[in-house]
Amino acid sequence: MTELDATDLHSALSDPLLDTMNFLNEVTHRYPDAISFGPGRPYEEPLDAGTIADHIDAYTSYLAKQKGFTPEQVSRALFQYGPTNGLINELIAETIGHDEGIAVAPEAVVVTVGAQEGMLLVLRAVIRDPADVLLVSSPCYVGITGAARLLDVAMEPVPEGPNGLEPAAVRAAVERVRTAGRRARALYVVPDFANPSGGSMPVATRRELVDTAAALDLLIVEDNPYGFFSRSGERRPTLKRLDVGQRVIYLGSFAKTCLPGARVGYVVADQRVRAVNGTVSLLADQLSKIKSMTTVNTPSVSQAVIGGMLLRAGCRLREANQGRMAAYRERLGALQDALGRRFAGSSAVRWNCPDGGFFVVVSVGFDADDAALLRSARDHAVVWTPMSYFYLDDGGRRQIRLSCSYLTPAEIAEGVRRLGDFIEA
Amino acid sequence: MTELDATDLHSALSDPLLDTMNFLNEVTHRYPDAISFGPGRPYEEPLDAGTIADHIDAYTSYLAKQKGFTPEQVSRALFQYGPTNGLINELIAETIGHDEGIAVAPEAVVVTVGAQEGMLLVLRAVIRDPADVLLVSSPCYVGITGAARLLDVAMEPVPEGPNGLEPAAVRAAVERVRTAGRRARALYVVPDFANPSGGSMPVATRRELVDTAAALDLLIVEDNPYGFFSRSGERRPTLKRLDVGQRVIYLGSFAKTCLPGARVGYVVADQRVRAVNGTVSLLADQLSKIKSMTTVNTPSVSQAVIGGMLLRAGCRLREANQGRMAAYRERLGALQDALGRRFAGSSAVRWNCPDGGFFVVVSVGFDADDAALLRSARDHAVVWTPMSYFYLDDGGRRQIRLSCSYLTPAEIAEGVRRLGDFIEA
Repeated sequence: MTELDATDLHSALSDPLLDTMNFLNEVTHRYPDAISFGPGRPYEEPLDAGTIADHIDAYTSYLAKQKGFTPEQVSRALFQYGPTNGLINELIAETIGHDEGIAVAPEAVVVTVGAQEGMLLVLRAVIRDPADVLLVSSPCYVGITGAARLLDVAMEPVPEGPNGLEPAAVRAAVERVRTAGRRARALYVVPDFANPSGGSMPVATRRELVDTAAALDLLIVEDNPYGFFSRSGERRPTLKRLDVGQRVIYLGSFAKTCLPGARVGYVVADQRVRAVNGTVSLLADQLSKIKSMTTVNTPSVSQAVIGGMLLRAGCRLREANQGRMAAYRERLGALQDALGRRFAGSSAVRWNCPDGGFFVVVSVGFDADDAALLRSARDHAVVWTPMSYFYLDDGGRRQIRLSCSYLTPAEIAEGVRRLGDFIEA
Repeated sequence: MTELDATDLHSALSDPLLDTMNFLNEVTHRYPDAISFGPGRPYEEPLDAGTIADHIDAYTSYLAKQKGFTPEQVSRALFQYGPTNGLINELIAETIGHDEGIAVAPEAVVVTVGAQEGMLLVLRAVIRDPADVLLVSSPCYVGITGAARLLDVAMEPVPEGPNGLEPAAVRAAVERVRTAGRRARALYVVPDFANPSGGSMPVATRRELVDTAAALDLLIVEDNPYGFFSRSGERRPTLKRLDVGQRVIYLGSFAKTCLPGARVGYVVADQRVRAVNGTVSLLADQLSKIKSMTTVNTPSVSQAVIGGMLLRAGCRLREANQGRMAAYRERLGALQDALGRRFAGSSAVRWNCPDGGFFVVVSVGFDADDAALLRSARDHAVVWTPMSYFYLDDGGRRQIRLSCSYLTPAEIAEGVRRLGDFIEA
């Protein structure tokens, strides 16, 4: 029998980074009655399987009526291999025009299997070789650090401040990278309600960051999964909206605003790329070439579902998401209220108060490691994520991340009660 | 304005390998009236968009009635993020049991976004570092060589004989790799009706190849997109079927046997992996960890469509594909007949006669390069693929690949007439 040795596989597989989330899932699975502040996934809306057919119908009607497709062409669009860079690029460009004020040609959009594939494509394209370094916020979303590990991409953490990334910290990180003889090539950042910190960048800081990137010849990879879910309703411009010099590669996702099960995301990559022979293409075309070797194309069926949802929303997802925005506002409010009630007098327990999104970071007076998580799940039936999972260095040891997106306000209140019992145990 | 220099992007993007297929697409696009023997995609069946809903219904009914899912659980399965390694693993395991006699536990199956994602996952997992080499047949499918380029995986070509890969050639390649101080880690092979050569391995050779791999401590990555489409109806066992020692990692796809637009494929990876701490997992679990950083999961919507198709076929795709098998048989027969009629007396033009599949290789008396392809499309309205695209070395210069899967017998006949005019021009 063939038995493979784990040390004989790619080193990413031995990286704790790729294991941590498995541990969290395992704990959640082992204690099904625990209230879980773990996953950052969208809450479950009561949906009927039949709505899938309605969305597809809306898309195929559009192809027939607006685009003049024959029945054969409609069938081909839905059932055959599609174009590598996507079918619904035009609808996506129109939607981000309405929702974010981002003006972009459909040709600059690449439709991906979730934002995760977008991260993979962008990293593979722009990181030339081992001398190129990706700057990441610290703490950072594991999707990007995991993708970087898969591709053997070197990373340099940029510590976040209370309002997210700060240009001065970016400049310092670029300097560290240069001193080490390498090139800081790109910066990954979630400006709105970041995962895991919840931090959001003020508008002035956004402008300064875009200018800083231009001055340092740094590309910005902006990821915006949570932008709609502000508590106050205040809208801040995305970095891409402020990007006059095409410094910003923008990652979008329909998982939180349409349907997680469709797995449709996209990249906006309107940068010009000049070949050795002088011909000019878009970075989106280069990402397509890579995509032809990762997934070939995003399933037409999935794209048709999302295309139909966009059409039925008039390509205005912000309006269509009013209900979700209210639901997440309520959940984040419930979490803040519960934390306030439970830990009001505590000197050891502190937490932040994000302007929106799914996540709150709680500082606790002890090491919030895997052993603590296991005790919390087993003895107090409450699950959370150790913040140390989100650091490349030894940061976050005495912090936990609470995600409220998936729980009802009542579950949140009960979960915080249990968390209090655990912390004081 | 940011302008990126192509030489400043990852080197895979400058590799002719990732450009060749673009050139072919461009030529096809520029000469829409040309008959194209280029793409190896499935022919278009007259399908109605409504059938998508029927397939999804079949799958959700199964979840409710066979699996006892509540309506909430059905909704969650369809609309939420799903398990990383897939939803329909059990149905896939049952299907390949029936169709190929491959006995495998559902846990050893990873559902992927097409076989292409499977290639990416497998390469990333089993190629440990730059000293590990992937052996590929020569000529070889560009999907695997492209994925290897993306991951900076070194390759060694193994020249095919008239009946596909030969164990002696594999042994010689392993020896070359060892002499160069590297390790031959895995061999990619399509035993049935390979793309592009059309070659098929005799049963005795298959057995010998599996034994050879065991003797050389080589993993086999078997890709089987065309196995159903035999001309004679003869069935040969897959390598995985003959694999008593779990040497073979098996890649499957539903693009040709169900629906290209769903983009659902899978990997069978039942190898045991032993971690440093002694715990044992399946290679499939390791692939899942990688998948969580490439696409997170295969769209539930797509899986539901394929799940429904499998259920409606009683998990017996061979029976369900009798119509397609006859159609491809007819097309390959029409291509052979047309070549025979047109080039019967020619000494310069020769071609092979594959036992099945989509492809025929024609040797011509001149350099079949991009310039020749352009002339052929422009002046004679017929498109084909230069065989040189499929070689890592300078092989295939005077050969072309004809794909017949996408054309009707009448188009094939007319296309070969035009090809004759081009060749004799």
